[in-house]
Amino acid sequence: MEDAAGALPKKVDFSEWYNELLWRAEIMDVRYPVKGLYVWFPYGFAIRTFVYQRLRELLDKDHQETLFPLLIPEQEFMKEAEHIKGFENEVYWVTHGGTTPLDVKLALRPTSETAIYPMYALWLRSHADLPLKLYQIVNTFRYETKQTRPLIRLREITSFMESHTVHATWEEAEQQVESEIALTRQFYERLCIPIIISRRPDWDKFPGADYTIAIDAIMPNGKTLQIGTVHHLGVHFSKTFSIMYEDKNGEQKLANQTCYGISERCIAALISIHGDDKGLILPPVAAPVQAIIVPITIGKRHEDVMAAAEHLKNDLTAAGFRVKLDTRDMRPGAKYYWWELRGVPLRLELGPRDLDAGNVMAVKRTGEKTSIELAAAADGVTRVLKEITDTIRTAAEQHTQHNLCTAPSIDALNGALNDGKVAVVHWCQNKGCAEVIEEKTSSSILGTDVRSPYVSESEGVCVVCGKPGKATLVGRTY
Amino acid sequence: MEDAAGALPKKVDFSEWYNELLWRAEIMDVRYPVKGLYVWFPYGFAIRTFVYQRLRELLDKDHQETLFPLLIPEQEFMKEAEHIKGFENEVYWVTHGGTTPLDVKLALRPTSETAIYPMYALWLRSHADLPLKLYQIVNTFRYETKQTRPLIRLREITSFMESHTVHATWEEAEQQVESEIALTRQFYERLCIPIIISRRPDWDKFPGADYTIAIDAIMPNGKTLQIGTVHHLGVHFSKTFSIMYEDKNGEQKLANQTCYGISERCIAALISIHGDDKGLILPPVAAPVQAIIVPITIGKRHEDVMAAAEHLKNDLTAAGFRVKLDTRDMRPGAKYYWWELRGVPLRLELGPRDLDAGNVMAVKRTGEKTSIELAAAADGVTRVLKEITDTIRTAAEQHTQHNLCTAPSIDALNGALNDGKVAVVHWCQNKGCAEVIEEKTSSSILGTDVRSPYVSESEGVCVVCGKPGKATLVGRTY
Repeated sequence: MEDAAGALPKKVDFSEWYNELLWRAEIMDVRYPVKGLYVWFPYGFAIRTFVYQRLRELLDKDHQETLFPLLIPEQEFMKEAEHIKGFENEVYWVTHGGTTPLDVKLALRPTSETAIYPMYALWLRSHADLPLKLYQIVNTFRYETKQTRPLIRLREITSFMESHTVHATWEEAEQQVESEIALTRQFYERLCIPIIISRRPDWDKFPGADYTIAIDAIMPNGKTLQIGTVHHLGVHFSKTFSIMYEDKNGEQKLANQTCYGISERCIAALISIHGDDKGLILPPVAAPVQAIIVPITIGKRHEDVMAAAEHLKNDLTAAGFRVKLDTRDMRPGAKYYWWELRGVPLRLELGPRDLDAGNVMAVKRTGEKTSIELAAAADGVTRVLKEITDTIRTAAEQHTQHNLCTAPSIDALNGALNDGKVAVVHWCQNKGCAEVIEEKTSSSILGTDVRSPYVSESEGVCVVCGKPGKATLVGRTY
Repeated sequence: MEDAAGALPKKVDFSEWYNELLWRAEIMDVRYPVKGLYVWFPYGFAIRTFVYQRLRELLDKDHQETLFPLLIPEQEFMKEAEHIKGFENEVYWVTHGGTTPLDVKLALRPTSETAIYPMYALWLRSHADLPLKLYQIVNTFRYETKQTRPLIRLREITSFMESHTVHATWEEAEQQVESEIALTRQFYERLCIPIIISRRPDWDKFPGADYTIAIDAIMPNGKTLQIGTVHHLGVHFSKTFSIMYEDKNGEQKLANQTCYGISERCIAALISIHGDDKGLILPPVAAPVQAIIVPITIGKRHEDVMAAAEHLKNDLTAAGFRVKLDTRDMRPGAKYYWWELRGVPLRLELGPRDLDAGNVMAVKRTGEKTSIELAAAADGVTRVLKEITDTIRTAAEQHTQHNLCTAPSIDALNGALNDGKVAVVHWCQNKGCAEVIEEKTSSSILGTDVRSPYVSESEGVCVVCGKPGKATLVGRTY
């Protein structure tokens, strides 16, 4: 739509790189005239489509998709005390229909517990109805007062996947939490995004939860980005909303619940972790265009090459790949730049000499060249795309490993954070000590019970008080 | 989730039938505690998914999908005078974030012209950027004061497809209108829903349009349901929002625009037109389950039959069909009832005798039985599903043809409408005469330039004033 002039900032200047890339690679336009609301460009929207297809594939194995209203009446929203406290400053209120004041104010959902659970109370009758596992992918709203950032801190979260499950017992809900964590692992594994799982401290858990397990990613600047949360709700909400079932003995029991969320932050992580100075690098599973064919036609072989390129496109499309043939009247170099910026994992260059040799030159967005036999193009592309995925995953794992360290003292922690790292310290789980850690190092306690291949659980003494402590993840967060 | 007791009302009592069916077939729950907002059950949501997949397939051929914010700042919303007049009584306003009054009130989009066009003004530079054809599928909001009805008249339209195109000239935009009409035809043809196309009278066109072409369906009770509209916007909005392009001669020109919408009313029509006294009847393209396999296992052949049923399911799934095997511990008759209510087009009954004969009994939801060879099950199912589609389409066409007539006078028109029909009359296009027609027959002028295989354009005199008139569609509308 518009040409972006000049070079992309270097990725080492992460904030500038990120903002420029969103615009130049046509992910989002930030010029919408309301703070914190952004416009998805078609290309960005296509990435969103493929990323959420991956998520749906996993969810649909044992959840069902559904859709609840956006607007929540004040009286329902205000029912669960802790929940209100968590959200009261962040909720947008609809107060008028036309010029008429509404009898009941309506909240734009910041999350849907209070929209969904009154219905669950109607639906649930017997133990035979359990477990109930539904999800929806919807727009949600938060009146953010902090600085907003596209895909990261939004006033309209356009793509919030929220799962809400109901179970007979606390233990079954706990198992569901583990199952949602496993699902999240698989999802991010497909996107080649390394994650660190931890249990958030009590003061940072979801308002109305027994406990919260969070999924964080380390961004290029060393800050952590929370890209998923799973909450064990116990019976907090089922008490408030009377979500009861009749057990096998005919007794009425309160149900146990979980909820679980992933937003478009997954795309912020995807873009940020994999991209480089040339632009996006998309793993094939998330790429709207997996392979771009660039014909190199000089002189009289033009028609031969174009026919072969068309043939190659049809072969690969028939084999199920998302392929485009770039026939625009531009220099090949300009086309390379264009598709590299947009992160297309594989470029297929086809010129007269390749054609004569029965090959096509495969240039990986991750940096290597290799030759693919035209007669077996689909097999070749399958192989090369797999190699690209592996390279992307390995690079991301190395980044995460490099940015994780242990810190035996407050000073060491501060040093590590200043070096753009996330650190594991020992902490006694006392809130006072947490406050000391957070204040002295301008950081946040992310959580305990850390699950990462790069963190080994260990015993140790609290970096503040010297009492026995647990391995605890600390970082500077978005 | 809950058992619905008692029988479904007869379809002849259309309103009751519709409301009960939505609930019993698990399409929507109407008990959400805000008027005009409804909850999609998972089964209903799955129908929605397949219906909108069909729509996306058609749109994606020459539009791109995108996503704009829900919230529109008051100053943008208030820019186009006619547009405001059309919506000012229907707009929900967000006035508070948390307990803080907002500086600028935010409208929940009733439709997105005023959200999208300020961005189009930024994006459009040159004739080379044209045409621009984007669409989004989003929730939109109308503060309806009339009686609300699930899928038909909503305060939250959950599934509004709106396309917004930009063109160099008025004529190109006019061609786009025709192209959107053709797309709509194809979409409804796939859903086996007969449509009538007409040009809405000027007083009923979209606020801010040069003209509006509407797509109506005739519901079982003879009322018409508007299930799509295409608007030629001319330069109304491009003037207001400065949507300009530089033409080949370097001159700045105002762009011409169209917009086009389809909502979940398409699903209301799908359900209503095809269903019968037993429940839903879904055309295979829209059915979440295209074939249900019911094993008939009596006595000792249980395991043979179950193994063959599993095998059949795998065969059909591999061939790309959406198939389920019903292994619940229920009588076969209860299963038949369950799946008939939910509109599954094909039931495959497999018992010991079928197995011995190498066949499976195929029972069409539209009423016939036929035998399919197990060894060529996918071919057999392809054939039978096609027959079912044809039967559904033919029945719907017959209904539409039966419910359309011509009326040479006001009395004849009134009689036809009272008989549950939609009529074509001659009308002089004078507003006074239209008011007489509408008042005397409690109806609405739907439009002129009627396009339907069952209406032939003809000359005639106005049923009110006797002056020369045009063939005009008149009906009682939702």
